[in-house]
Amino acid sequence: MLRAGVIGATGYTGAVLLSILLGHPDAKITLITSNTYRGKKISEVFPLFRGRLDATLEATDEDYRGACDVYFLCLPHGVSARAAKGLYDGRALIVDLAADFRFEDCALYEKTYAAHPASELLPQAVYGLPEIYREKLSGARLIGNPGCYPTSAILALFPLLKGGLADGRIFIDSKSGVSGAGRETKLGNLFCEVAEGFRAYGVGSHRHEPEIRKELVKLADVTVTFVPHLLPMNRGILTTVYGSLRKYVPTGKLLDVYREAYRDAPFVRVLDEGAYPDTRFVRFSNYCDIGIKTFEDGRFILICAIDNLVKGASGQAVQNMNVALGLDETHGLTFLPQFP
Amino acid sequence: MLRAGVIGATGYTGAVLLSILLGHPDAKITLITSNTYRGKKISEVFPLFRGRLDATLEATDEDYRGACDVYFLCLPHGVSARAAKGLYDGRALIVDLAADFRFEDCALYEKTYAAHPASELLPQAVYGLPEIYREKLSGARLIGNPGCYPTSAILALFPLLKGGLADGRIFIDSKSGVSGAGRETKLGNLFCEVAEGFRAYGVGSHRHEPEIRKELVKLADVTVTFVPHLLPMNRGILTTVYGSLRKYVPTGKLLDVYREAYRDAPFVRVLDEGAYPDTRFVRFSNYCDIGIKTFEDGRFILICAIDNLVKGASGQAVQNMNVALGLDETHGLTFLPQFP
Amino acid sequence: MLRAGVIGATGYTGAVLLSILLGHPDAKITLITSNTYRGKKISEVFPLFRGRLDATLEATDEDYRGACDVYFLCLPHGVSARAAKGLYDGRALIVDLAADFRFEDCALYEKTYAAHPASELLPQAVYGLPEIYREKLSGARLIGNPGCYPTSAILALFPLLKGGLADGRIFIDSKSGVSGAGRETKLGNLFCEVAEGFRAYGVGSHRHEPEIRKELVKLADVTVTFVPHLLPMNRGILTTVYGSLRKYVPTGKLLDVYREAYRDAPFVRVLDEGAYPDTRFVRFSNYCDIGIKTFEDGRFILICAIDNLVKGASGQAVQNMNVALGLDETHGLTFLPQFP
Amino acid sequence: MLRAGVIGATGYTGAVLLSILLGHPDAKITLITSNTYRGKKISEVFPLFRGRLDATLEATDEDYRGACDVYFLCLPHGVSARAAKGLYDGRALIVDLAADFRFEDCALYEKTYAAHPASELLPQAVYGLPEIYREKLSGARLIGNPGCYPTSAILALFPLLKGGLADGRIFIDSKSGVSGAGRETKLGNLFCEVAEGFRAYGVGSHRHEPEIRKELVKLADVTVTFVPHLLPMNRGILTTVYGSLRKYVPTGKLLDVYREAYRDAPFVRVLDEGAYPDTRFVRFSNYCDIGIKTFEDGRFILICAIDNLVKGASGQAVQNMNVALGLDETHGLTFLPQFP
Repeated sequence: MLRAGVIGATGYTGAVLLSILLGHPDAKITLITSNTYRGKKISEVFPLFRGRLDATLEATDEDYRGACDVYFLCLPHGVSARAAKGLYDGRALIVDLAADFRFEDCALYEKTYAAHPASELLPQAVYGLPEIYREKLSGARLIGNPGCYPTSAILALFPLLKGGLADGRIFIDSKSGVSGAGRETKLGNLFCEVAEGFRAYGVGSHRHEPEIRKELVKLADVTVTFVPHLLPMNRGILTTVYGSLRKYVPTGKLLDVYREAYRDAPFVRVLDEGAYPDTRFVRFSNYCDIGIKTFEDGRFILICAIDNLVKGASGQAVQNMNVALGLDETHGLTFLPQFP
Repeated sequence: MLRAGVIGATGYTGAVLLSILLGHPDAKITLITSNTYRGKKISEVFPLFRGRLDATLEATDEDYRGACDVYFLCLPHGVSARAAKGLYDGRALIVDLAADFRFEDCALYEKTYAAHPASELLPQAVYGLPEIYREKLSGARLIGNPGCYPTSAILALFPLLKGGLADGRIFIDSKSGVSGAGRETKLGNLFCEVAEGFRAYGVGSHRHEPEIRKELVKLADVTVTFVPHLLPMNRGILTTVYGSLRKYVPTGKLLDVYREAYRDAPFVRVLDEGAYPDTRFVRFSNYCDIGIKTFEDGRFILICAIDNLVKGASGQAVQNMNVALGLDETHGLTFLPQFP
Repeated sequence: MLRAGVIGATGYTGAVLLSILLGHPDAKITLITSNTYRGKKISEVFPLFRGRLDATLEATDEDYRGACDVYFLCLPHGVSARAAKGLYDGRALIVDLAADFRFEDCALYEKTYAAHPASELLPQAVYGLPEIYREKLSGARLIGNPGCYPTSAILALFPLLKGGLADGRIFIDSKSGVSGAGRETKLGNLFCEVAEGFRAYGVGSHRHEPEIRKELVKLADVTVTFVPHLLPMNRGILTTVYGSLRKYVPTGKLLDVYREAYRDAPFVRVLDEGAYPDTRFVRFSNYCDIGIKTFEDGRFILICAIDNLVKGASGQAVQNMNVALGLDETHGLTFLPQFP
Repeated sequence: MLRAGVIGATGYTGAVLLSILLGHPDAKITLITSNTYRGKKISEVFPLFRGRLDATLEATDEDYRGACDVYFLCLPHGVSARAAKGLYDGRALIVDLAADFRFEDCALYEKTYAAHPASELLPQAVYGLPEIYREKLSGARLIGNPGCYPTSAILALFPLLKGGLADGRIFIDSKSGVSGAGRETKLGNLFCEVAEGFRAYGVGSHRHEPEIRKELVKLADVTVTFVPHLLPMNRGILTTVYGSLRKYVPTGKLLDVYREAYRDAPFVRVLDEGAYPDTRFVRFSNYCDIGIKTFEDGRFILICAIDNLVKGASGQAVQNMNVALGLDETHGLTFLPQFP
């Protein structure tokens, strides 16, 4: 059994990660940390774990090098890189759920976030989208787990752009449940500031836009416009993408291209023609559902649904662990969507 | 006092219309009808009216010609046109909240909906978007009240396209609360089929797309893509529009164009640069809030928020009545958004 | 026109109060304050007011004695009493929406809250439940506006207990929307900590229990049990009360007792036998709906619905102003519930 | 592997049951039926099953005797008993999720529901609350799976009443998410009729009241009052129970009584003093969380939370199967609550 540590376990990604790891056949939670709740039992912080996980939270700011075989960092950006620096030894696997190891280009990271406290590790890091980087991830020891919006946008566009079927202006309209904003006590996340309302935010300035762009421009000559919106619900992202094909491809044929591209991707479900994703049918699962429509004049619509905390965060982190360590990619991740 | 009749008063647009008319200084509700609930008091159907409106519902299928000065038709399409046929006398005002008098082009209506049962009335009908057709509406006696999505999309684009500032492909991504689907008992409108989920529907096939298109192509040479989505909330539409300017205009300057275009529109609020609409700040009101962002390479983002049942339906119907009959445009419509 | 000041205008009760006052025929908002947002326009804090109220927020900690004819204090308890002390001059009306002037008994207040900073004013204060204390309120210059839960519980029980029809153990099970918790950024008020969940809180220890009890024991010899619960919605309180009649009274007859008791209460609607309140049919209004069922063995069930921010706070505050100053009790408060 | 059949698989209990059975180590789904959707794939009806369960729905009205080792009946009452009649052979296990085999007393069933179409089977039926009837259930071949409200109310009260600690008037105030109402297209279940509102229903007349009562009066001399309420959320029941102890027992001591009573119940979690259940920490799991408070004057408050579709329906059905067939009681049911 792998010894798994969750560093910063008391946010939403932490809670979901612990849930997944508790059901993983090859891993065992041996370390959980939190500066805020150190000394408390995790079941006091998240009563859902009563009777299932009663481990005590250790301080985050300690030296745990050597303690685990895999570390999941659920920390704020910057803090995360510093923690990785202390833990990295080339043997244990580090999966960072913050943004610190998502960018190959340090300057782009620093422009988007802040000064990078461990840029010397960047050459070791692999961007953790297994559907695209499965080979690089195999054997990796430092993984930058993608952002939730980028996961949905990139998986929606990958086969299209890689196939050279589209370029030019791509408009990405994303909608996310509130859990994507984390567990911080900010005014904008209060129930009454969200429920029964809907708004765009970070219009043209969201930090996930550079992350999406740097992946897409590797594939094609595109201009990316990204607008995230806040949904009055807990979990789920739906991303609707608009743009123009280089040459008309019928919907059915494009769906075939997608099915082929994701043939070996156990968590991507390409829907039938005329069907479109609903976050309800992926929520609480690691699935990514994709639907497509094209028009004879060359316009296309792509729609992609994921659970932002699972395929968009903690589920993908475990999937990355599986791939990096040569385990079955689906281990611990076969739980179904929950409906209603 | 104008004698007002609400034909088909027991759906959501009916309920909201009655609420508005009860506070209108120039109108008095003298007739409410429903086939389903005939003989019942409206306060039994909608207990919110207890002690305020205890009128009894008459059968819809009766001849009420001459009974009122203004008739609001809250009926299914087709049924509505037949009712209009029976009521139209060139003196009383008819405001149709269905789709039957929104299309000047009968063939387009029939392709989108069904055979038109009163096409001879189409030449009398005016499309009821007062911000654009205020002059035509003045004195009109038959008004086709716009659809909720078209209201948000057209108001978002009108100054831009009229000003000749954009053309080509326009991508309209709309999100609506559930009340837009009406009060029919359909599986897809059940709480558990909507709450905590989000999906697109009518992708490339929604009936509001031809309505949006026929208005926009009057203004510019554009190709319209429209995708509506269902929000897990009661009320509100947010429409995000993407496209390309013919020539770069800075955000602030474009906002000035909008302010000028809507100078005489008491219900359109053009926001400041950097601010974007939230349905929470228009809900339960007749306001339409618009925010804009442009990019130096010519891309633009327009965001528009309305309450689908007020500015998107019943509020606009009363606004149309005010304009048609020469009343103050804001009469009965000065109620504020409700938050939280 | 009365000059009205709202001291602490940027919480939820402040927002609702401003909305109501904007529509009040006899009052004019001449002062709004906030320490947090001083110098900002209210329409920046609450964009719903765009184009309707653009006044600038003054500092709360200033001397405004003499500036207004009526002051509404929307401040935390303790802070509120201190503000009242500074403003009270026996001429201007002060309506305190905090708890500081709800208790005649200073010791009980101090046991429940904290040391009272202006206990010398307590003899001037009237408990602002107009349905019970209309006469005392007439001419009052310091009013303790009741808590939201107490308003629902006391109005549900008043005719029953005053009529000597019940005593003994009374079980009050209340459920409130989240806006009752105010606009503070607390973990427990985050969307993801509330949505799709339901819990009791303050079990046997909520501060509204002593307030409920002190009013009920004036009427009858009762023991009060009160459990509040948090509903995953913005607005509304439903209170279900259980207990035993001294002697069986049929439901219909008890409803008559209620109708008689509330004959002059324009905002209390006593429902018909077999009908029960729904918060949806009072929300955004000042109504209080009450339904009743009794059993032949003497058990009774009372159900009461209010909007916690209107009849449970800001609407009641305006109602109190109306009564205190001899205005029509319904002025500014005739707005209807909003549905859906 | 047990061959499991789900008769009536396209409601909410069916969907959840299929989810659970797919993860059960000892069972295999070999039959799913639906009259409405016969011939369709279950993954078309519930797209969550895409790629996981693609079985085709058979007609419900066929003879499947002998086809399975265990049948789960997810049918309307009455229909269910007729199906049981056709399937019962004393060998295969039948778990009825309708009300038809919950009442030992046929007259009480018929008074509450309708004429019983298979009353001759009643003597074989066992009431499927394993925490109380584990011994009787072992070896049973016909199980009446309890209602969702009764599960929460009876588990909340069982140790108290069995221990002779309380009697007299018991007030049970229950609140349920909307999925408890099933997937029928009724007006009252529409999103806009539920969201942002809260109401009691079936006041003093709900069909679960006789079911609760018949179990409680076996334990003590009690009078039961039961009021269910509809929560604006998908899943979860919280039941708050009020009453009077025969003699004061401190909270901590009563909690000990509960821990002892549920020592062998793997799904009941008795909370610590001062802690109370939240539906969020049981949702999507088979747990039943219980919190307690007593007062020196003898009043008690019990609070119980379950997921209405799991412990209140399909999870309990599988638990009953496990117990009846001598499998480990937790098999297939170890999935955790999902939060947020």
